[in-house]
Amino acid sequence: MTERVLVNQLQARADGPVSVSGWVETVRDQKKVQFVILRDETGAVQLVNPATRELEEGADAAAQAAHALTTTISELTHGTFLTVHGELKHDERVKLGGVEIKIGTLDIAAAALPETPIAADSGLDKRMDWRFLDLRQRRNNLLFRVQTTLEHAMRTFWIERDYIEVHSPKLMASASESNAELFSLEYFGDQTAYLAQSPQFYKQMAQAAGFGKIFEIAPAFRADPSFTSRHATEFTSIDAEISWIDSHEDVARMQEELLQVAFQAVKDKHGDEIEELFGIEVQVPQIPFPRIPLAEARRIVAERGYEIPRTDGDLDPEGERQISAHVEETYGHQFVFITDYHPEIRAFYHMRDPETGLTKSYDLLFKGVEITTGAQREHRVDVLVEQAKEKGLDLEHLEFYFDFFRYGAPPHGGFGMGLARVLMLLLGESSIREVTYLFRGPTRLAP
Amino acid sequence: MTERVLVNQLQARADGPVSVSGWVETVRDQKKVQFVILRDETGAVQLVNPATRELEEGADAAAQAAHALTTTISELTHGTFLTVHGELKHDERVKLGGVEIKIGTLDIAAAALPETPIAADSGLDKRMDWRFLDLRQRRNNLLFRVQTTLEHAMRTFWIERDYIEVHSPKLMASASESNAELFSLEYFGDQTAYLAQSPQFYKQMAQAAGFGKIFEIAPAFRADPSFTSRHATEFTSIDAEISWIDSHEDVARMQEELLQVAFQAVKDKHGDEIEELFGIEVQVPQIPFPRIPLAEARRIVAERGYEIPRTDGDLDPEGERQISAHVEETYGHQFVFITDYHPEIRAFYHMRDPETGLTKSYDLLFKGVEITTGAQREHRVDVLVEQAKEKGLDLEHLEFYFDFFRYGAPPHGGFGMGLARVLMLLLGESSIREVTYLFRGPTRLAP
Repeated sequence: MTERVLVNQLQARADGPVSVSGWVETVRDQKKVQFVILRDETGAVQLVNPATRELEEGADAAAQAAHALTTTISELTHGTFLTVHGELKHDERVKLGGVEIKIGTLDIAAAALPETPIAADSGLDKRMDWRFLDLRQRRNNLLFRVQTTLEHAMRTFWIERDYIEVHSPKLMASASESNAELFSLEYFGDQTAYLAQSPQFYKQMAQAAGFGKIFEIAPAFRADPSFTSRHATEFTSIDAEISWIDSHEDVARMQEELLQVAFQAVKDKHGDEIEELFGIEVQVPQIPFPRIPLAEARRIVAERGYEIPRTDGDLDPEGERQISAHVEETYGHQFVFITDYHPEIRAFYHMRDPETGLTKSYDLLFKGVEITTGAQREHRVDVLVEQAKEKGLDLEHLEFYFDFFRYGAPPHGGFGMGLARVLMLLLGESSIREVTYLFRGPTRLAP
Repeated sequence: MTERVLVNQLQARADGPVSVSGWVETVRDQKKVQFVILRDETGAVQLVNPATRELEEGADAAAQAAHALTTTISELTHGTFLTVHGELKHDERVKLGGVEIKIGTLDIAAAALPETPIAADSGLDKRMDWRFLDLRQRRNNLLFRVQTTLEHAMRTFWIERDYIEVHSPKLMASASESNAELFSLEYFGDQTAYLAQSPQFYKQMAQAAGFGKIFEIAPAFRADPSFTSRHATEFTSIDAEISWIDSHEDVARMQEELLQVAFQAVKDKHGDEIEELFGIEVQVPQIPFPRIPLAEARRIVAERGYEIPRTDGDLDPEGERQISAHVEETYGHQFVFITDYHPEIRAFYHMRDPETGLTKSYDLLFKGVEITTGAQREHRVDVLVEQAKEKGLDLEHLEFYFDFFRYGAPPHGGFGMGLARVLMLLLGESSIREVTYLFRGPTRLAP
């Protein structure tokens, strides 16, 4: 590599020759002096060049070069990637980091077309059309650094606790959750394959395989025709599953500790910059998170004056916001586990409490939005088959899944969590589209 | 959670009450004493119970319980998951770890059907049908721990060097590499989506977005009808891409350092166990890895007496084995970079050396098998379009990709590496099917 210096290393560096690479953010082409703001993945720096506007006849090579450089800078387009070799100089008067670089030579790697199709304030859909330009914004760059830190903290948490990472297949012969919203494809002529809606069945398989504790962060697919700020047809799912639990409480305890550790890592590494660019103070959650049984949550929401229109006994999005507002006001907490869901509104594989008849499961809400469903799973195959039958499911297509439990299985449970939802809420963004590298929705398959 | 103790913690624990959970590996039901070997994700332990075969009339509760326990143990099936509360006792005579547990109570979580459909020596296809049972083998459990360590070491290497982790979409409107071997699906009626064959275009997009250095570990899909030991229709691809390189050499240097660090982590954590269960000594590769231009590699292979039947100038699998054997004999090295491929046998986006006309790319061979293609990419859009045209590609469908380079882009390059191939070779396995959690091939879509 060239001896490239990153912009965030310039302040600590002594005056002298230096080489930086990045893209042109702005050019101020004044008569006597030219300024270029060059940005790289770590920051922005001011480049300066005393303009040589006129070339006298018989000018020497140096004068010719100076004139050529001035012309090159005058013609620089926004977004052009280039490398500058020059002289670094500390100067308190320079607002941008207190340094500037006097340009010696300038090498253009790839010049940008003159008309940039979007600006920072373009509409979301337009920005998504040109996502690679949109991602050059500082806040978007930060966003994916936050994502990186968040995920690495979670994986490290698990690996320190001897979890195994699995890569479960995304091509399946049957539906993993339900037959609705399933992408199907022709598989070598006579077979039909489906895209995994979640790693649910396969992470349970790892429990029957004696893996003990596992995690996976991977894409999941839902042919979901909805256009809300929280849904995508392809999303990154954060999944964990653990054996030998007593109830979903063991899962919840693992998850709250995980989130505490991960948020702490984000705050430590990016807290100041998040505050600067997103206006959000990252709150590291206290554990334990509050827990509220669903029936009580509904009572509280009703007492706050909101009547949930759903008749199935679940919360709706406004109900989720209301109960989270209550928790924030009462406990000063941004998270809440809602527990004790009726089997009718839960998947067939959720274990039921023999005393209450309710499922041993939870939803986790963060700032009023559901980010997770967790549960103890039913590992007794006779009960499991009975519950599937009760839901009217196609038992034949579930046989491969039931098999997982016919040769022994431990009590187990886990959760699935949407990465984009966590990021959206953590950074106070309005849609998962803003926090997804390349969003996929019913009318969005490109770029 | 119950106060479950993992089997590998028993040796260090004092004699006394203890609770362990796992699955039944064997039962020796002798007349006077019963032995159960219980395995969990960390090891195996011997459970012992003095048999109470007869129950006298008027026997007390304790005698009844003892008789019931004896019966339960006699009826235990292989694979049954259970928890035992008992008394831990250190005893040098016990071969298995020098400890045993006298059973107090025994709780069956889920009893296994009596006939286990596979044994450790069953054929590969049969074992894949019952993969969840196959995975209970110690070597398979270790295999996925090795995978976990390998990946975590790689991610940590990158994150310590400020790489951004991306999740590129697996649903695309166009092919990412070629139109061959592409899975397509109906996307909301009137659209066609394709499954990503690699994250190639989208990791390059991150370079135009100014991300600098990125990585991704994610599934990739190829509708590849081949049945070799090295191919799958779905596989885990390890990808990295970096900006401001001078040539593919910068990519190769990053990759060899990455592999050295990752192999060291595997050796440190699992070296002894790999030697015990796979009979393989993990060799941490020295850097730099040897580099051999393709033309020279072909000469060497020919001198060894092997005539490559391919006429396109590339190596074939036997040629790869031959050149690797040469490198092993000459340099004692298991890795070799083959460089300087002709553009005809490389993707259109590989940058070409203006002097030689050859691509600035490499293949990395490990123990005679290709595990990676790496290259500097062509970032100058006019040259890129020309190269695509020369290959006879459908330019219209590549417009979205060309756009990435029209608004400025840095010189960049990267590599893609197949996780399963690395694991297969590292552990001396004969097929990627053995090292994939759930293999997917033309006739394999289940379980």
